[in-house]
Amino acid sequence: MSKDDAFRPKARRPRGLIDRRGPQLAAERDLVAKISRVYEAWGFEPLETSAFEYADALGKFLPDQDRPNEGVFSLLDDDEQWLSLRYDLTAPLARFVAENYDALPKPYRRWAAGPVWRNEKPGPGRFREFWQCDADTVGAASPAADAEMIAMACAALEAAGLSRDQYVVNYSSRRVLDALLQAIGVGEGDHAVRLIVLRAIDKLDRLGAAGVRDLLGGGRKDESGDFTKGAGLDQAQIEVILNFFAADDQAAVMNASFDMLSGNGAFEELTLIGGVLKSLGASGNAALDFSIVRGLEYYTGAVFEAQLISGDGASFGSIGGGGRYDDLVSRFKGQAIPATGFSVGVSRLAAALQQMAQTQADGPIVVLPFDPEGMADCFSIAQEVRAAGFSAEVYLGGSGPKAQLKYADKRNAPLAIILGGDERANGQVTVKDLKLGAKLSAEAGDDREAYKQAQDRIQQTIPRADLIAAVRKALS
Amino acid sequence: MSKDDAFRPKARRPRGLIDRRGPQLAAERDLVAKISRVYEAWGFEPLETSAFEYADALGKFLPDQDRPNEGVFSLLDDDEQWLSLRYDLTAPLARFVAENYDALPKPYRRWAAGPVWRNEKPGPGRFREFWQCDADTVGAASPAADAEMIAMACAALEAAGLSRDQYVVNYSSRRVLDALLQAIGVGEGDHAVRLIVLRAIDKLDRLGAAGVRDLLGGGRKDESGDFTKGAGLDQAQIEVILNFFAADDQAAVMNASFDMLSGNGAFEELTLIGGVLKSLGASGNAALDFSIVRGLEYYTGAVFEAQLISGDGASFGSIGGGGRYDDLVSRFKGQAIPATGFSVGVSRLAAALQQMAQTQADGPIVVLPFDPEGMADCFSIAQEVRAAGFSAEVYLGGSGPKAQLKYADKRNAPLAIILGGDERANGQVTVKDLKLGAKLSAEAGDDREAYKQAQDRIQQTIPRADLIAAVRKALS
Repeated sequence: MSKDDAFRPKARRPRGLIDRRGPQLAAERDLVAKISRVYEAWGFEPLETSAFEYADALGKFLPDQDRPNEGVFSLLDDDEQWLSLRYDLTAPLARFVAENYDALPKPYRRWAAGPVWRNEKPGPGRFREFWQCDADTVGAASPAADAEMIAMACAALEAAGLSRDQYVVNYSSRRVLDALLQAIGVGEGDHAVRLIVLRAIDKLDRLGAAGVRDLLGGGRKDESGDFTKGAGLDQAQIEVILNFFAADDQAAVMNASFDMLSGNGAFEELTLIGGVLKSLGASGNAALDFSIVRGLEYYTGAVFEAQLISGDGASFGSIGGGGRYDDLVSRFKGQAIPATGFSVGVSRLAAALQQMAQTQADGPIVVLPFDPEGMADCFSIAQEVRAAGFSAEVYLGGSGPKAQLKYADKRNAPLAIILGGDERANGQVTVKDLKLGAKLSAEAGDDREAYKQAQDRIQQTIPRADLIAAVRKALS
Repeated sequence: MSKDDAFRPKARRPRGLIDRRGPQLAAERDLVAKISRVYEAWGFEPLETSAFEYADALGKFLPDQDRPNEGVFSLLDDDEQWLSLRYDLTAPLARFVAENYDALPKPYRRWAAGPVWRNEKPGPGRFREFWQCDADTVGAASPAADAEMIAMACAALEAAGLSRDQYVVNYSSRRVLDALLQAIGVGEGDHAVRLIVLRAIDKLDRLGAAGVRDLLGGGRKDESGDFTKGAGLDQAQIEVILNFFAADDQAAVMNASFDMLSGNGAFEELTLIGGVLKSLGASGNAALDFSIVRGLEYYTGAVFEAQLISGDGASFGSIGGGGRYDDLVSRFKGQAIPATGFSVGVSRLAAALQQMAQTQADGPIVVLPFDPEGMADCFSIAQEVRAAGFSAEVYLGGSGPKAQLKYADKRNAPLAIILGGDERANGQVTVKDLKLGAKLSAEAGDDREAYKQAQDRIQQTIPRADLIAAVRKALS
């Protein structure tokens, strides 16, 4: 790059992408660490696939995407093959298992965490890159594997810091919908209607019964005037569906519908899941809820969704979900390979936890070379403080004392260690307790005498040899 | 997806991309965690930028890439702007700092870890996606900031598990090359020659003096017959360069060249770095080495490279490096913003550490439902074992005892807890010590009596209530 290069690019992020930093990023990473420790304790091993896959290997299973390649970032490789960035962690898992099937333990349990990318219109809280943290079991057909997922989701959310009254994992099965559609005469081969009904029920929370009624019937025009095609069911069919999915007492509905739900195994599946949840001690935090259907087309059995619960018991939004997807690996292999999985929405859960906590972590101790000649001593001091187990850094800018103290505040430093000319001449250092300072200054207010006394407590010049003891005392 | 869908995609990874799993992946992540804890202890805060940047914001600073867009994965966004995947973590940092300059503490210290992508020809050990773990200080012009980087690199490598005789961080400055070029009459504006000389010296390790001599002169034809254009220097100029950069006693060369190196500040810079390294207690593991120039064009001052040292003291390859890049942020802002940074090659270091260690981590304890009716009890057992602090999982496949034990071996389980029909009827469990089993069976060999006695030690059927105590004892 030449210095006379006149071109100045504008420093800007692409639309729908964010930078995360400092305490917020640390909190999100801490969350992934806590959740993945639970996954590992339950026997799941880590897997990291690459960001790209061949477009055909990834498939097109995003919700609400009817056009090919919609929703996915794709590029042409130099051998003329299309590559796509992963839009979730499940499709790459299917490719990985199909490619390495013989070498893997079966069932194969794995967890994965990382960014996924969606080429969608960005909006508030809706980004084109976000993190997921998933666990999946491939090769286990039993609903016990689904129940294990649900119970482990509860354990993961509790490890993340939620108490038992702050979340619930609701579950149901796609077979319930299958049975109901069969009962009202919609055939198994009628994919288009099935998909519209599925997505309509998935929107019950957001649109209410009236909106879903339109989507099940002739169609719905939203606030912006956009029209969504309906499933074309008649009034009687719509009533059967709404009466079932919007019912208050789900267990009663299930028992009353025994014959219908037993026909395709849905009743037995949900009963078995309930039993295993009891064995795992998780039945208190998981609940049968027929309105859970999930928007992704590829689910074939159990579906579940984790929701935050606010103080008044109302649901606060989804923070994760998953389900059984028995055909996703099979589409490569041409043989049945059942699978089930759960995914945590990391950013969303982290934001919710942060809202609950409201504390900010301390920055490092900052060593300030008020006298620039003392730089070498400052490095030795920082090294000594780190050796004692604290984070520490030396101010490396070229500015004077005032700017240095401002820098320490900006770093949220609990302490500043100051080395000026006097300190150096006398073998001393000055320790300034910035946290105590903020507190006492606020308390003293306009009281000059109190302010002066506070200053004496906040800032002390001590022999260099007493430094580590003073740091320990101030931070204890 | 319909079941009668006849299309079967082939399950395959794109060229030059890899899947990482299990203990190998865990080791790499552990490495990033250890290194980043050092970065945080030195006052660096985490930052995560997105995978994409606008192509013009990212710039084109890859080594050996003379054609535009070569080496980078790019795609056209739906607003007709070009996006590129980051090829390192430094260029996105420059964009981030320029975009958020006023809000950041100055100097701004940050660390980052994550994948980067290069659209290059893949080869053995050469991938198109790999991880970096970087630390950078932006806004500090003093060579003390470079010295801090070098000392922190030493601390990071030691935290990663290297002992002091297993690595060295070599350093020099681009100003040395500048001074030398000036001395032989190559002007500052002659970028093309400068760049060829730079890359030639960077290859001294690999090509030896003879190969570099060709590159400095008329050019070089490699084994494959490809021709690389030379810098076109004459014999006298070439001798000056080789005598300097390939010298044995670097400190002697530096002192003998005082006038030349002092002219542009190189002497003072390297002396100051040496002094701060001493203050930080790192001078034993950092060494002045003029042959270190680094291939990236954007460096402007100090350059450094971490190398593994094998048993016989010979260098074993680069595991990280960095340097000062004072123009990278400036190109957005049009004002001077000095910066310096260090990057660890995570995969390479992890591979080297694994080669040194050669131990494999245990998998989880596996609970085997020999009697399928006992599945619920198996879940309770696994939960109990996890509550005692161990990792545990239930076999969820549909196969019998023999396949279940094979599965436990494949999971590298230290223990199998077996629940068969007899155990259930008698309130017992069988604990099989798989690690002890492998050891004793190997020792017994063909001795049938020894083998039988070993079996009694390996496998024990005990009351259900004694399970946790037995697990603790076996794993202690």
